[in-house]
This record gives sequence, C-alpha cells and structure tokens, in this order.
Amino acid sequence: MSWNTFGRVLRFTTWGESHGPAIGAVVDGCPPGLELAESDIQPFLDARKPGQSRYTTQRREADEVRVLSGTFEGRTTGTPIALQIENTDQRSKDYSQIANTYRPGHADYAYDAKYGLRDYRGGGRSSARETAMRVAAGAVARLVIPEVEILAYVAEIGGDAIDPAAFDAEEIARNPFWCPDAEAAKRWEASVDAARKAGSSLGAVVECVATGVPAGWGAPIYAKLDADLAAAMMGINAVKGVEIGDGFAAARLSGEDNADPMRPAQDGSGPRFEANHAGGIAGGISTGQPVTLRVAFKPTSSILTPVESVNRQGEAVEVSTKGRHDPCVGIRGVPVVEAMMALVLADHRLLHRAQCGA
Amino acid sequence: MSWNTFGRVLRFTTWGESHGPAIGAVVDGCPPGLELAESDIQPFLDARKPGQSRYTTQRREADEVRVLSGTFEGRTTGTPIALQIENTDQRSKDYSQIANTYRPGHADYAYDAKYGLRDYRGGGRSSARETAMRVAAGAVARLVIPEVEILAYVAEIGGDAIDPAAFDAEEIARNPFWCPDAEAAKRWEASVDAARKAGSSLGAVVECVATGVPAGWGAPIYAKLDADLAAAMMGINAVKGVEIGDGFAAARLSGEDNADPMRPAQDGSGPRFEANHAGGIAGGISTGQPVTLRVAFKPTSSILTPVESVNRQGEAVEVSTKGRHDPCVGIRGVPVVEAMMALVLADHRLLHRAQCGA
Amino acid sequence: MSWNTFGRVLRFTTWGESHGPAIGAVVDGCPPGLELAESDIQPFLDARKPGQSRYTTQRREADEVRVLSGTFEGRTTGTPIALQIENTDQRSKDYSQIANTYRPGHADYAYDAKYGLRDYRGGGRSSARETAMRVAAGAVARLVIPEVEILAYVAEIGGDAIDPAAFDAEEIARNPFWCPDAEAAKRWEASVDAARKAGSSLGAVVECVATGVPAGWGAPIYAKLDADLAAAMMGINAVKGVEIGDGFAAARLSGEDNADPMRPAQDGSGPRFEANHAGGIAGGISTGQPVTLRVAFKPTSSILTPVESVNRQGEAVEVSTKGRHDPCVGIRGVPVVEAMMALVLADHRLLHRAQCGA
Amino acid sequence: MSWNTFGRVLRFTTWGESHGPAIGAVVDGCPPGLELAESDIQPFLDARKPGQSRYTTQRREADEVRVLSGTFEGRTTGTPIALQIENTDQRSKDYSQIANTYRPGHADYAYDAKYGLRDYRGGGRSSARETAMRVAAGAVARLVIPEVEILAYVAEIGGDAIDPAAFDAEEIARNPFWCPDAEAAKRWEASVDAARKAGSSLGAVVECVATGVPAGWGAPIYAKLDADLAAAMMGINAVKGVEIGDGFAAARLSGEDNADPMRPAQDGSGPRFEANHAGGIAGGISTGQPVTLRVAFKPTSSILTPVESVNRQGEAVEVSTKGRHDPCVGIRGVPVVEAMMALVLADHRLLHRAQCGA
Repeated sequence: MSWNTFGRVLRFTTWGESHGPAIGAVVDGCPPGLELAESDIQPFLDARKPGQSRYTTQRREADEVRVLSGTFEGRTTGTPIALQIENTDQRSKDYSQIANTYRPGHADYAYDAKYGLRDYRGGGRSSARETAMRVAAGAVARLVIPEVEILAYVAEIGGDAIDPAAFDAEEIARNPFWCPDAEAAKRWEASVDAARKAGSSLGAVVECVATGVPAGWGAPIYAKLDADLAAAMMGINAVKGVEIGDGFAAARLSGEDNADPMRPAQDGSGPRFEANHAGGIAGGISTGQPVTLRVAFKPTSSILTPVESVNRQGEAVEVSTKGRHDPCVGIRGVPVVEAMMALVLADHRLLHRAQCGA
Repeated sequence: MSWNTFGRVLRFTTWGESHGPAIGAVVDGCPPGLELAESDIQPFLDARKPGQSRYTTQRREADEVRVLSGTFEGRTTGTPIALQIENTDQRSKDYSQIANTYRPGHADYAYDAKYGLRDYRGGGRSSARETAMRVAAGAVARLVIPEVEILAYVAEIGGDAIDPAAFDAEEIARNPFWCPDAEAAKRWEASVDAARKAGSSLGAVVECVATGVPAGWGAPIYAKLDADLAAAMMGINAVKGVEIGDGFAAARLSGEDNADPMRPAQDGSGPRFEANHAGGIAGGISTGQPVTLRVAFKPTSSILTPVESVNRQGEAVEVSTKGRHDPCVGIRGVPVVEAMMALVLADHRLLHRAQCGA
Repeated sequence: MSWNTFGRVLRFTTWGESHGPAIGAVVDGCPPGLELAESDIQPFLDARKPGQSRYTTQRREADEVRVLSGTFEGRTTGTPIALQIENTDQRSKDYSQIANTYRPGHADYAYDAKYGLRDYRGGGRSSARETAMRVAAGAVARLVIPEVEILAYVAEIGGDAIDPAAFDAEEIARNPFWCPDAEAAKRWEASVDAARKAGSSLGAVVECVATGVPAGWGAPIYAKLDADLAAAMMGINAVKGVEIGDGFAAARLSGEDNADPMRPAQDGSGPRFEANHAGGIAGGISTGQPVTLRVAFKPTSSILTPVESVNRQGEAVEVSTKGRHDPCVGIRGVPVVEAMMALVLADHRLLHRAQCGA
Repeated sequence: MSWNTFGRVLRFTTWGESHGPAIGAVVDGCPPGLELAESDIQPFLDARKPGQSRYTTQRREADEVRVLSGTFEGRTTGTPIALQIENTDQRSKDYSQIANTYRPGHADYAYDAKYGLRDYRGGGRSSARETAMRVAAGAVARLVIPEVEILAYVAEIGGDAIDPAAFDAEEIARNPFWCPDAEAAKRWEASVDAARKAGSSLGAVVECVATGVPAGWGAPIYAKLDADLAAAMMGINAVKGVEIGDGFAAARLSGEDNADPMRPAQDGSGPRFEANHAGGIAGGISTGQPVTLRVAFKPTSSILTPVESVNRQGEAVEVSTKGRHDPCVGIRGVPVVEAMMALVLADHRLLHRAQCGA
C-alpha cells in the first residue's frame, strides 16, 4: 500500500536514482536469527550486473552491496535491514537533449505529466537501475524460504523460442542469455548481435519456476498468490504481460484438457497432480505443485534508430539514443524475476504463518 | 494490503459465501457529494447476472443490491458505503460428494490445505459469486472518474478470435457474448453450445479499454498503474494471464516497431501519440492514451466430463460436475473486468490527487 | 491504513450510521477452526447495550448480532466474518434543528467542514453507536487469544476515584457503573443522578488490564504495542487521554522509583518483575507482565444545559440537547475499551507469529 | 501497516542501530516541486543533538544529514527521499555486561523474548537515536504544510510545572530546557543537575501546539486525527501518556464546562470557538482551532543508582548504568514531538486532499 514499498508482512522499500550518489532498499519484517552477510546477496547482484557480455549494456557498476543495519554477529535481528549500493559509473555527460525531450517508450513524458519535473539523468527513478535493489532484497527473501528453489531463464528472444525438449537447467548459467537450450543460445548470439548493430532491440519472454512451495500459501480474495505475483512481475521495468501456468494458452484449451487430474500420492501425503496447467495455484492458494509463470519484456526502448517525438515545448523532434544500452533488456530481467518471485513467496509464507500458524 | 480488501485510498472489502445468507461489500474512501442510488449500481449487476441465456449458468439470482450506509439524501457522505445482496437461489441439494472430494481446477484442495476446513457449499468463498460485489463496488468507483469511459468485450472464445476489422462497439450489447464482431458471435453460438452439450467448457480472452484517463495517474515503483491492474485482473476467478497494451506480442517486436511515436498535438495540449503499443502506460504512469489490457480466462473447471481426482481420505475418485455452470466463464467475466478497471483507476485518481493536488 | 478499517493482520472494517437501516463489521484475517457462534458475541453487546439503567441512555436497541459469513458448521473458516445489527429504535423525530445547528463538542461542524454535508440523524457515522461493532469484532478477537484475560472498569467519575484498596473484581458486574469499589459505586449513584437531573454530564476514567499476555508481542518502531493501543483507545468516541502503566504519574517519579526491578523467577521461566510502572510494555513489546492502561472520557457533549453555538448560516444560536443521552458516556465505554484491547492484542499475536513463528 | 514505517499517504521508514555505521529514513509520497536542501533539515537535527548542555547526554554526534535521493535541482521530485546520518561517536567500549544483562526500564528483555537475540550495543534499534530520523523526516513533512506552525516545549520536569501565566514563546529557545517560563527554567537547572549528580533521573511533560491547521483534516473512524497523533506520540521512546486538549482533566469537568462554545466569526468564515478544551479536534477531524496535546515522558531508565535485575542466565544481578545519558530524556523529546506532529498533519493533509480534493 504505497509508492515505493512492496509486500504485506515482509516488506521492502527502495530509493535512489540512476545518477544519484547511491541506491538502497530497506527490508522490513524479516524473521530474526537468519544468517545473513553481504556475501549472501552479492552473487545475485553480480548475476544482474551490467557489462558482462556484449549482449548487455556496457555501463560498468561495481554494484557492491553494503548491509547497514538489521544484522548482528552475522544474523538478522528482526529489525529493518538497510541495503545500499553506491553509484560509481555516472558519466558526466551532457543531458541537455534528454532533459528537454521525451524519449518514446520511456517514462519521460509520464513523469513530467505527473510531477511537473523529473530527474532526467539516466532516467532518474524510472531507470531499470532500481531493479538492483529488488535483486538485493530478493536475496534476503530467499533466506526466509529455504525450502523453495527458484529458477528463471529466458524462453524466447525476438519471437525465437527455446525447444522445451532441449531444456537443460545446467545450460542456463553457461551462456550470456540465461538460456536453457544451447541451440537457441547460439541463434540468439546472432540475432541479438544483429539487433545491436542495427541500432535496434529485441523483446524476450522469461519463465520462472519455484519448486518446493508447500500447499496453502496465498490468500483469497485480494491477496491471491497469483495476483501478487502478477503485480510483482508487471511492475518490473519493460514488462507488458504475465501468465500463470498455461496463461493465455489455457484460454484455448477445453475444460477437460485444462484440468490437472489428481491421483493418490504414493506416500499418502495428499494428492499427486498429473499435470500443472494451473501453474501451482488454485483459488489464489498454492497447491504444492511448482509455481510457474511467464513474463513478457518489450524490446529496449532506448535505440539508435531515430523515432519521432516531441520536446517539452511541444515541438517535433527526432530521438536517437546513443548511450550504453541493453539490446535485449529481458536478459538482465532474469535475476529480477527470480527476486520478485522470492519476495512474494516469502511474504506469503509469513502471512500464512500469521493466520494459520504453520 | 489485506486478504479481502482491495485498493489504497479508495478501498473495498468483500465478504460472503456462495450459499450463505448474503454477500456484501464495504467501499471506503469514496469522495463525498457524489449522487448515488441503488439504480446506479443495479444495471451493472444485471449485466453480470446469471441465467440470461443458455450460454451462461442457469442459476437464477435476483442480485438486487441494497445500499445500507454511506449515503444521505441521495449523495455519498464520505463514510463507508455498505452494499449487500441476499442469496436467494441456494438449492438445498446434497453436498456430501463435493464435501469429501477435491474438484480439479477448483480451490477445494488448496483451501483444505490452507485452512484445514472449508465451506464446500457451491465453492463457498472461492465461488465466482464473490465477483458480484466487485461489480457493485465498481459501479461506485465509476462515479469517482466520470471523465473515463470503460469498455470491455470478449475478443476470443476457445481460440476463435474476433476480426479487429469487424469491430463494432454497438454490437457488444446485442449478443449474449459481449462480442463486438457479429460474425464471431454467430460462430460462438455454435461452439459454446457444442461445448455445453458435450459436457465440456471453453476459455476466453477479454479485452478492456479505458478512454479519457488523463496523463499522470499511477505511481512508481510498487504502485504502478499496470502492476495494480495486473493484480486486479489476475485476482478475478479463472484468470490466468494479463497483458497491458501489446503484451506478449510486444516481446516479438523490434524496438522501433514497438515505439509509440509522438507528434505535437494540434491544440498544443501535449504530445499526440501515433501508436499505442504501450497500452497507455509508461513507467507505471498513464500517458493520456487509452489504457488497454487483455485478460485470459481458463475454461470453466466445472464440467460434466469426468476427471480423475482424490477425496479427503486420499482415495482415487472421478469427478463429474452436474450442477448449473457456465460453459464459458469468461463471458460473465466482462462486467467484472470493467469493474476492476474502474476500481483501480478511481483509486489512482485519488492517489494522484493526494500527492500532486490535481 | 484506512479510514474505517483497524488492524494490520487481524483487521476489521465497520460501517453504518446511527439511524440507517443497520450497522456492521467485517473481521478479516481471523485464524480458521475457531468455534464461533452468535452466542459468543451477544453477551458483550448486551454489556454495552443502552437502556439498562437510569445512568445510561434510554434509547432501546435489541442489538442482536447476526453472523453473515466466515463460519461453517460452527467454526471460523479463515474467510471474512460479516457481523450485522439492525437498527430498530430509530425514532422518527424532527431533525430540522440539529440539521442546521452545530452541537458543541460534537463532530457536526468538523464533518461539515470536511465533507460539505453530513447525515445528521443521531450523529450519523460519528455516533457512538458505531462502537457496538467494535464490541462485536472484539468478541471475535478474544477467540484468537484465549490465553489472555481482559478486564476493564470505571476508576473515576467526575473526579471521584475508586479506592484501590477497596478493589473487588467481583463487584464490577454488580453495579451499573462497572465499578470495582462498592462504596464508590454508591457515591456515583448520587453524583450521576444529580448530573442527569441538572441537565449536565460527567467524565470518567476507565482502566483496563490484560493478564496472560506473553513476553514478545508488539513490534518496534512504528507498530509498538503501546502506540497501537494508544490509537485504539484515543479513537473511541469521547476519549481525550490515554496512559500506559503509570502514564503521566511516571513523569513525576525519579528514575529509581519508576524502574521495575527484576528477580529470577522461581520456576526459571525468565524474570519476575517486582513492579509494573511500565504497564507491561517495554520498547513497544510486551514483557509478560499485565498490560495496563487508563483512558479518559470527557463528559457527554449532549446536555440539556444550553450552550452557545452557530448554525450552518453562521448565525448565533443556543443548543440544548433534549434527546436520550448518557449522563456519563464513559460508563458504556467499558466494553468498548475491552474490545479494543482484545483487537490490538489479537492482531499483535498474529503479527508476532508471522515474523517469529511462535 | 508495518513495523518501521509510519504514515498512510506520506510515509516514512527508518532503519539503523545506535552503534551501526549509519541510521536513515526514507520519506515516500512527498509532493513534487517543494524546495528541499539539507539545510532545511539540519537545524531541526541540531536542536535535538546531544551534548549541547550538561542537562543532556554527553555523547557527541555531528548528526549531519545527507539527502541521497528524491530531489533534483533543489526540489523534491515526488520520488522517495532517502535521508542518512553516519554514526560517528561509537565508543568502542566493553559491552559484555550489557550483552548479558537486562537493564530495567529498557527494551533489553522484551527484545530477547521476542527475537531470541539483540544488538545490545547502545540499545541497538531500541535506542532513542532512532528519533533523529523522525526529526529529519519531520523537517520534510513541514514543507508539505507551510500554513501550519508547530511549537513544542517542556511544561513540567519532575512534577515541577511551568506557570501558564508566565508563558513566553520567545523564552523557549533561550534555555537548555525548551522552557517557556524563565522562572521554571531556573528551578529546573537546579533539579536536573541534582538528579544527574545523584545518579538519578527525572520525567517530563511536553506540550505541543499546531496553529494554522484548517478545519477538515482527519478521518473517521480508524484514522482519526487524534488517534493517529496518539500513536505517533506514544511510539516515541520513553513516552507513557498522551492527552489531546484537556485530556484527563476533561474527565473531571462537567459537560457545560467542557463545551467549546461557538460564536459567529466576525469575518463570516465559520464559527469562532470561545474555548478549546477539545484541543482542536472533534470526531477525529480538525476544527480549525489550534491542535494541542500533552505527552508524558518517564524518567530516563539509564541511571547510576543500582537497580535489581537478572541476566540472560536468569541469575540475579544489579544494574548501574555508567554511560553518557540524559538526566531527563523528555528535554530532547521536544524536537521529536514537533516532528511527529508535523508528520501526522502532513499525512492527513494529503489524505484529505485525496478524498475531498482540497
């Protein structure tokens, strides 16, 4: 219930602009006694860090996180955990053009319309740089749900999808695209590179699977697990669509094909589902199956190809963005999607415990 | 921030089960002085009401809304508005089978796993009957944003989509499918009827457009207008996917094709957009273009065709749902989608005024 | 975080005006499986009910509560619990004078200033009738904390205080003042009667003690148990002051006199406190001692004695309230104070479980 | 609705421990376009800063605030404002005794009971050092309500009260006690010094008056202006009581003596009140009169005089606190009370605008 805070019981608040002195997050409501050091967070930030291949922006940020509060002798104390990253690569460039121009696809005009002014340096608050703090907060959230394993990957770039039959989880970390299909990764090398060279950009679809979520997390009616996940994902920069389980494909199935039949579990521990069209959620509550979702990222809006626009004076201009930008912003969205999944699940894990005691 | 409450400043709370004595909603935070009578709400409920064609459930509910508080001499007073509908058609049937059986695709198992018990009569709280109160609350929300016009319709049933070229807004209310394409509506008559007779069901895609939303509503970073809309829509019963603007199709466009070029407005009132791939939202804030979204409804889970399941004792059973059910639940989702759109926009209209004073 | 909703995890929303058709509450977030029937709530409403002695208002309301949702086969289901009371004694009187006049001490002018209109019948939403729903919701909250016993009583009327040495808990229910000191109760018979006959009114101080609260409930920094209790109590109609433990008297003690020394508990179960100046709360968190507080009720604002005022046209008038009113509104505040104590403690019990798992 | 966040629309979140590297606050929801520099905040922090006289703790902190986000070219942008202060005077002392001992009157035992561990260095999160960030956030809140003037002062120390007839607002800043009565200030020099030398401490009562608050701020029923103020004040470290207007004294008045008569304003601008027993609030909504309240601070718990206690092993110990402590913690509470008043009023100013548009 707020502008820059997310969550209900486990909440985090982020602050900071792309070109300010620092960005930060405050994670509140975290259970006490969890082991937490900066080294638990840094690997997730490193995974998101720009400048690691020619397929992502060449901006270079150390992205070294500091934990400024909320831990004592290596463990969380139950008080707010302040995380902070200094901005180190703020090129002192001339922002006069962007200051006066509305870049198509960006929040420039919308911010001006809302606030009457904006910090235009690098997009200010609307920069995807903010997502670094989601990743950091997500690393804390993971500690709250050690029983859950979260895996995200890119399933499609520019309309070119992976072959599900070729899915290999080990492959994901081996290529610069978080791609579980080695063949697709090779194709994407060519297509992303081509887009970059052409001054264009590509969209992507990211999939995320959380295994180990027990049945019973989530809450009707307006804190449904899928509704909270939808908000979490749709709020990531450049995201335009979210599907739970089969998503839009479910709208094309018959009722009997979409049903997830249940059979007795061999160990007597409740039903064993024979399909997972539902993506592990029914009535807003987890069923014990893997929670699965898909997220659509639009192509990066910052492109070299000129696009028609207007300036603050309402005059016609052409915008061509020459900075250091991701040719496919969805790639670096993978750790962010994982982080938001972790944050929603951890929040619901605590919510469930509040009401139901388990 | 709660289980059965939605919204930030304009909030509503719903209560009630499918087969309890009544269902209700409390709308809080509504501006004072708005003209409000039951007749402002009833038409929207009538639009959602079951039993109006053979393409929807034959359950018959009068769905007559009463306003129990919050108005005086025909106007809102600024205090909470209690809305209530008595449940009249609660057939006294034998629920012993459903009481003991988990219906696939329903929330039965998830509720039991969470709460250890459930009101199984007609789905209890998880019944789509709850959405009647969203529609009622949405009618109040509309009064808060008289400048906005909201139109939803069914764009696809069972994979058979409308022809955008044949779009006719006047057609929507003329057929039982809220279909803007007369030809498609005819085809759906056949397909929905066939599904019903076969004891099967079909999914649907609903589109919604809100025109008249000024630039500046919404809020970064965790109250983005699109994120709130995603939560609102994904939380509707049977919804599995949400797209803003081009949604997943945007992930297949190049950056230059996805850009929404701006040109000077002829009246000098800010930019005129030459496309709307973004669906009227940038950086989580409205741009002044129509706000557009698409929602995927899965096929009705209650079908006559038997599906494998288990009972509470963990034994294998077959479930065949014989009750009165919608062969395509997405059809009756149309007024619900409109209501949630109205509620999110009205909430953000007040939020914007809180921070920015306009 | 809302106008008519109270609580963080266990929340309740109330609605209704003094002279509308009904008043109600929706209790959300209640744990499932608790035995709950209307008979668990009714005794608390009966305790608050007007018209039971000549020391309280002669308005007669049956105040029969109905549970409209959230239970099944006698137990809570974890879904929202709707409570409702019909207003039966709405005398059809002439409200033209009050409609146009601002009664001193009442919310009349403030509501008009805020909303531009108000439901003036019996005070509308600002009537203490709303507190009936707090009492009803509080009865539900008590079920969440069965280990806690809550006792409130009147400690002072019109400046005439009980003798702590004469405290007898059994006496409280034996007199119409909820007075634990039989001698004081006798004196109050005379003083309250005199005030009533004189067309005047008296203030009161209510004390409340909750025993059985374990150490560890509450939360720094802005959800402190004492801060939440302060809000809960100050929000009751006619309340002007709240003290935790020694309250203002603590400001007159030396540090050593105000300290609550600790000694080893004989059973090794943590410290045994040798005093309770703190009222059972330190740093916003319960210490395991009884939680104690005091609440100041101003004298009833509705009095027969004329008071100078103005009308909506800004003209000078005299106001003399002739209706049926409590000569000492603090008396009927006792069950309301108990209810708010229960609601705050139950909420924090669940909050504590969310974060700390116990 | 959270642990370390305060407010509904204008919200702030604080973090940090007494002896961590820094403390901070994030202020969210602030209107855009307000002029804000560090120099707008620093004077308020300087007023609260320790070590300025021998009547407050000798801990020396520069308390230099940095604004790390949310402003651009000297004005607020509407995005979160991060405020930060480095802790500079963290004496590396031996904390082994306090680590193992529960100091009476402190949160030591309560934190351990809740969390199972605590940062014992200087009280960690429960240290009054946290209030520095309230003061910083309050300075931002003041910018939101430029029409309001807030004045707090000490009205009583150790039971020795000021003479209202001797009230001189100009005197407040002239003595180290924020005392508006020069004679009282002189007496307090002696009494506070005596307490300090005796290893004891004194309590205090702080009064606060906000003038310029228009009629109409606040909200029934659970966001009443007085209830929010009560929570804000009771949540300040060492506060045990809050009174609005006449507070407990009102409970000793007759109805006619407690009434605030109204007469026509000479300029026709609504009623002119002839008294202010109500403290400027009726029905939870401001009346246009000055908002007045009183806050009771207990004597500092950290005293040299030994007090009986137990250690973590449950053994009997004596605690004598030798550190640098305020002999009367209420004195330094004055800027904190002002800050919380500003924060509550600013929040309600925006809330009122959200619902009522003004």
